[in-house]
Amino acid sequence: MKTIKIGLLGLGNIGTGTYKVLEMNRQQIETAAGAHMVIGRILEKDVEKDRGITVDPMQFTQNPDDVLKDPETDIVIELLGGIEPATSFMLDAMKNKKHVVTANKAAIAANFDKLKKCADENNVLFRFEASVGGGIPILNAITTVLQGNKFDEVMGIVNGTTNYILTQMAECGLAYGDALKAAQDKGFAEADPTADVEGHDAANKLTILIALLFGKYIKPEDIPTEGISKITKAQIEEAKSKGCKIKLLATAKDSCGKLEFSVKPTVLNNSHPLAGVSNEFNAIFVSGNAVGELMFYGKGAGGFPTGSAVIGDVIEIAKVINI
Amino acid sequence: MKTIKIGLLGLGNIGTGTYKVLEMNRQQIETAAGAHMVIGRILEKDVEKDRGITVDPMQFTQNPDDVLKDPETDIVIELLGGIEPATSFMLDAMKNKKHVVTANKAAIAANFDKLKKCADENNVLFRFEASVGGGIPILNAITTVLQGNKFDEVMGIVNGTTNYILTQMAECGLAYGDALKAAQDKGFAEADPTADVEGHDAANKLTILIALLFGKYIKPEDIPTEGISKITKAQIEEAKSKGCKIKLLATAKDSCGKLEFSVKPTVLNNSHPLAGVSNEFNAIFVSGNAVGELMFYGKGAGGFPTGSAVIGDVIEIAKVINI
Repeated sequence: MKTIKIGLLGLGNIGTGTYKVLEMNRQQIETAAGAHMVIGRILEKDVEKDRGITVDPMQFTQNPDDVLKDPETDIVIELLGGIEPATSFMLDAMKNKKHVVTANKAAIAANFDKLKKCADENNVLFRFEASVGGGIPILNAITTVLQGNKFDEVMGIVNGTTNYILTQMAECGLAYGDALKAAQDKGFAEADPTADVEGHDAANKLTILIALLFGKYIKPEDIPTEGISKITKAQIEEAKSKGCKIKLLATAKDSCGKLEFSVKPTVLNNSHPLAGVSNEFNAIFVSGNAVGELMFYGKGAGGFPTGSAVIGDVIEIAKVINI
Repeated sequence: MKTIKIGLLGLGNIGTGTYKVLEMNRQQIETAAGAHMVIGRILEKDVEKDRGITVDPMQFTQNPDDVLKDPETDIVIELLGGIEPATSFMLDAMKNKKHVVTANKAAIAANFDKLKKCADENNVLFRFEASVGGGIPILNAITTVLQGNKFDEVMGIVNGTTNYILTQMAECGLAYGDALKAAQDKGFAEADPTADVEGHDAANKLTILIALLFGKYIKPEDIPTEGISKITKAQIEEAKSKGCKIKLLATAKDSCGKLEFSVKPTVLNNSHPLAGVSNEFNAIFVSGNAVGELMFYGKGAGGFPTGSAVIGDVIEIAKVINI
């Protein structure tokens, strides 16, 4: 059996989740991949933190080149988040003939074409299942067994933070500020929640979905985006009284050849499949001209679900590369 | 671009749907596959029927060997249904070094190990996405990007006929017999509905799900199976009065290392994600130790959705074979 050496950029929540998934299910993962998996160098400043995993201190480095240019590394997993330096690191890794796996929606959304082109030019694989919907295997589906379809619509609850807040407002009668605080206490919202609550995170994910479903690159800043921070208890109650829920939806629709898209709070009848998606769960609804309506539902965030998607990408790369 | 030659066994509802999906989205499919797709010989008795497609009468044959042994054929698509002669035809195709795609759950469930072994021995690919959940891309997901998980549970509404009947009973107050007739009138149930309403079709699909999720082959006849033909209007009403629905569920659960499985009508609270799956729709809920709870929802039958899955498998084979 071949041995795949993996370099890690970042050992935060997702990095640690990925590490734990590999340790927890190692035998099954290696059988599926047809390869032994070895984690090599890890770019991470915080070497003291107790993550509940055993890492040799020698694995840690603060020099990106130790990961990006290590001649023995086959796959670089980028889990730093943010556009830079993550994008530059991924491009460097590709130029050094490393396959790249990432969960970083901001970097992909900002630089989709550049990253794809660089991967193609360097004949390496570039996978990013975890970037949309966390553990939900939507990107792999639309780029493999659903490719016999022309898609006409996508509609997704793709941000767990805002869905948790909206669910708490609807189910517990909380005001926006209190629901946000509850989300922060539970670890579902960050100290600065702007990227989530103002819809920017959902716009990044919509850029990626549009690129894969419709073959068009729309910058996230060109997507009309409205968040949930102005949603009031009264609006939630009004929707409820009409048998409806308010959800933050990322949508794109092919309307007679013209693509329409937005991220905005939307009133959905309770009978709609997406209305039943509560708390931190995500769901993505797509419609194709052969398959009809499809929905994928699952955990859109968290170390383990996101780690599941990252490791899934690593397995798929391991299956096809010759080393 | 390479050219892939496809032989077809059967041009019924699914065969015609597959043919139409290929014609409708040919350019996109060929780009995704990196190959031209040519349909060669078609094993089919009914050469006169108007299917709304253009088939050269010379393509039709009633001699299976014209498809199975044609030296130019790369992929054989088996859409005859039933255990035999479909299984023997697939084994013959594999022995003649043809890759095989099928939608035939009865044949796979009856002969899973034999078919997998024969494919491996002959170094050909064997794909059957369409056999469970029609257009829903569940099998590809669990055999690719979800392989980093140990699964502990699967729970599915995998038969559209029975789900349509149960929905009509619940929503329109119909008795079982009237709902069955409505399903037959709409083309959702066959003249002899036994395989569907007694749960045998769902048991076949559960055999396939168990094999892929848990790596165990359980014969469909060894799965405790109860259908819906004895469900009364009174039982449906009683469930409704308690905020519940009755659904025919195929389930398997790893209970401390012991696999428990069954197909049976089950009372589900309306808050359960599967309770909202109505009419001919299918949905499959799985739980993995990394990804957590996932649900896949879509059309479980019909020429176009099933054709989407068949063509998806053909694309995936075309991508990796050298011809």
